[in-house]
Amino acid sequence: MTPEAKPKGSPVPSDKTNNGLYGRDILSVNQFSKQDLEYIFKVSKEMRTLVERFGSADLLQGKILANLFYEPSTRTSSSFIAAMERLGGKVIPIHGVKYSSVSKGESLPDTVRTLEAYADVIAIRHPEVGSAAIAAHYAKVPVINAGDGVGEHPTQALLDLFTILEEMGRIDGLRIAMVGDLKYGRTVHSLARLLRHYDVEMVFVSPDILRMPKHILEEVTERGQKYEETDNLQDTISNVDVLYVTRVQKERFEDLSEYERVKGFYIVDDEIMKKAKKDMIVMHPLPRVGEIAYTVDNDPRAAYFRQVRNGMFVRMALLAAVLGKA
Amino acid sequence: MTPEAKPKGSPVPSDKTNNGLYGRDILSVNQFSKQDLEYIFKVSKEMRTLVERFGSADLLQGKILANLFYEPSTRTSSSFIAAMERLGGKVIPIHGVKYSSVSKGESLPDTVRTLEAYADVIAIRHPEVGSAAIAAHYAKVPVINAGDGVGEHPTQALLDLFTILEEMGRIDGLRIAMVGDLKYGRTVHSLARLLRHYDVEMVFVSPDILRMPKHILEEVTERGQKYEETDNLQDTISNVDVLYVTRVQKERFEDLSEYERVKGFYIVDDEIMKKAKKDMIVMHPLPRVGEIAYTVDNDPRAAYFRQVRNGMFVRMALLAAVLGKA
Amino acid sequence: MTPEAKPKGSPVPSDKTNNGLYGRDILSVNQFSKQDLEYIFKVSKEMRTLVERFGSADLLQGKILANLFYEPSTRTSSSFIAAMERLGGKVIPIHGVKYSSVSKGESLPDTVRTLEAYADVIAIRHPEVGSAAIAAHYAKVPVINAGDGVGEHPTQALLDLFTILEEMGRIDGLRIAMVGDLKYGRTVHSLARLLRHYDVEMVFVSPDILRMPKHILEEVTERGQKYEETDNLQDTISNVDVLYVTRVQKERFEDLSEYERVKGFYIVDDEIMKKAKKDMIVMHPLPRVGEIAYTVDNDPRAAYFRQVRNGMFVRMALLAAVLGKA
Repeated sequence: MTPEAKPKGSPVPSDKTNNGLYGRDILSVNQFSKQDLEYIFKVSKEMRTLVERFGSADLLQGKILANLFYEPSTRTSSSFIAAMERLGGKVIPIHGVKYSSVSKGESLPDTVRTLEAYADVIAIRHPEVGSAAIAAHYAKVPVINAGDGVGEHPTQALLDLFTILEEMGRIDGLRIAMVGDLKYGRTVHSLARLLRHYDVEMVFVSPDILRMPKHILEEVTERGQKYEETDNLQDTISNVDVLYVTRVQKERFEDLSEYERVKGFYIVDDEIMKKAKKDMIVMHPLPRVGEIAYTVDNDPRAAYFRQVRNGMFVRMALLAAVLGKA
Repeated sequence: MTPEAKPKGSPVPSDKTNNGLYGRDILSVNQFSKQDLEYIFKVSKEMRTLVERFGSADLLQGKILANLFYEPSTRTSSSFIAAMERLGGKVIPIHGVKYSSVSKGESLPDTVRTLEAYADVIAIRHPEVGSAAIAAHYAKVPVINAGDGVGEHPTQALLDLFTILEEMGRIDGLRIAMVGDLKYGRTVHSLARLLRHYDVEMVFVSPDILRMPKHILEEVTERGQKYEETDNLQDTISNVDVLYVTRVQKERFEDLSEYERVKGFYIVDDEIMKKAKKDMIVMHPLPRVGEIAYTVDNDPRAAYFRQVRNGMFVRMALLAAVLGKA
Repeated sequence: MTPEAKPKGSPVPSDKTNNGLYGRDILSVNQFSKQDLEYIFKVSKEMRTLVERFGSADLLQGKILANLFYEPSTRTSSSFIAAMERLGGKVIPIHGVKYSSVSKGESLPDTVRTLEAYADVIAIRHPEVGSAAIAAHYAKVPVINAGDGVGEHPTQALLDLFTILEEMGRIDGLRIAMVGDLKYGRTVHSLARLLRHYDVEMVFVSPDILRMPKHILEEVTERGQKYEETDNLQDTISNVDVLYVTRVQKERFEDLSEYERVKGFYIVDDEIMKKAKKDMIVMHPLPRVGEIAYTVDNDPRAAYFRQVRNGMFVRMALLAAVLGKA
């Protein structure tokens, strides 16, 4: 609640601070140093132990999270609520906010300055790119970006990376394929950016019109990272440790015959899983709509529901960290 | 949170288990043995004592309820929230779910498997018959059916029966009339089914076109239960211990003149209460829209608001029981 | 939860009771004696200390607030939730209630009698004047009016007055200007009424067609209070201790050219702030839509966000008081 706890405006790069994430905003995957990531994953792992042994803790007793969702997202909003509640904190759920009516009535800065009068931390989901940064600029309490349109969704990227670490025991040395809509997919962009901190091989599998954007490829290679591009999942599957699946949406195609031609190539089913390694994992940010067959759910390599649960642990770690209690 | 705690798929009949309701789903009134009912009512009574003396307890500290309401029901959703909160547990309120949008985006099994990553128990209200059973089939945590369309609403039936027990001191030996729309009324069907465990006389009072369905009557007589049917409340009222009122809805009638002819026959007002026994009770699942006159509210025999409160105690008992803390 | 705790129907004037607000409804600013106000502000101040030192307390552990909002009001509903949570209590959030659907389905008295079965106190926001009084008439638990249409919004008036006291150190002797739409503005009417208990000078600054209603002016003078009326903010600003700003809404004007002529006269910007006293404060009930320039926010005299936070402290005080824990 103290204005001094948090630098006004843009966050301090954590490499230059002593105590890491305390009082900071969580806005973008680009803000994290490798040291930050290691810290977050260490605490996330402790959170898993805590939940599995005790269900909850008192770490954030007396703290309140304002959960400000301008667009519905049951998965993400429920995850933040559960994370706060399992740490002994409380929540102001603000889920019915119509974007249009708020833009008519009140500016985002005023809404944020109202909520910080009541709450110790704000999670915000908003359809406009940059909105979380605006909120953070005006708020004296830490702001966590829970998705700002086609912009960033950093807690999703962190839980994705934490899942790889938990499932595979390591990140370095893995061959990680991202499949589907790599052009518009916010999650694969963020994951690729985070993976630059590690020594991995990335394989980008997509139809030609949905290839990973050039600026992401350039960012990836900046630190000497290697990647391959292909449109063929069949040839790729046998040689990857992680298969990160996203949906190929019909509405991305101008030429529908092209969509009809390619759509089946990116569906993960029992047939394709037969070709995959025995100890690989399949991930998905969810919701899925057909791109992973239900029959795959019983395959032990299907990690997407464990991935959901990891989201709660990562958000617990972040809430504890920015409130100085991790 | 442990998958072993709950049998995958259909619930184990409680008569065959040692520890009753722990880890089980609450899906249908048909799942309960008489022993289950006695256990639930004993715990519900303890919950009343607890609330009246202390307001709340710590029994479910560290536990989270996902309150998943696909259709609005302020009464039932608030009752589950209060029940969880008075036991020291916390709630993820998911009340804005539009049925159509979820059906477009994500299947019920995926939603349920997402929520069990965050929560220890799920209460679900859904407009489609069988949806709670589907949810329970996929969830590893206990699922409580909070109403699935014209299907089941078992917690309502339990609170109805608990109210009779609390108000009258016993169930055996009572003469219990159900009045109104007995054809479509989910609550009277479930109550009739639960009453098969007891030695009661049932009187079904309704217009001819809204009579209790044949299959319910057959179920009732299966265990040798007696019942009467009549369309005349005036003649019945003087001789019943419990009058359970439901609404006769205009839209059920093809012939509106028939509706106009009969509607007044099933309205409970001061006049009709004069003919009732001194120690009988009037019940209603609420909301009411005219079928019980407001002037009856001050009559000590009007039990319907006490009935609402009993719902909280019964849901407290069920939450504690399925989580192994009763 | 005990019916005896609260007199049925209209509240007892507090001057005639020993223990002040315990078990009472909070319906109107007119119900408060000066002694009540002093008590509320003393407790509100203690609540500030409590929050700033400890974040939260256990005072209302085991208590539940039903937060019944028939119309959306993120600011007020969030404030009540935070107030209850910071006192260790819990909340049933009922925010999605469509007014029309409830009026179709269930009467307000029945809704209230349902909620009191679950909760220890009810806060109600409803678009119809008098609705909170109806709710209070039927509820056995205390009811707090969180705004009933153009009627009352007593917790807003209390937080406004508390803000003046906190910011200025006193209320007596101040010169307090209210600016903008004084004809329809619920908040300025209530504030003027509360100020009758103090020795202040009031200045009412508005366009001619939006002047303070005659009946409010009469109430103000009843106790010998002095006031001035003017349409000129420029001339007034240099000589006031408190500037309470409200919006001049376009839709109030039949003659739009009249609106265009006057609108700029009531906007508070850096220019006008240069003429104001060094130790005065600017207040606003929020949301604002242009009537205070964003550049004023950094002026230390801008008190409107501190005012928001005071709302939480005042509501904490009221919740604790009516539940007998202050």
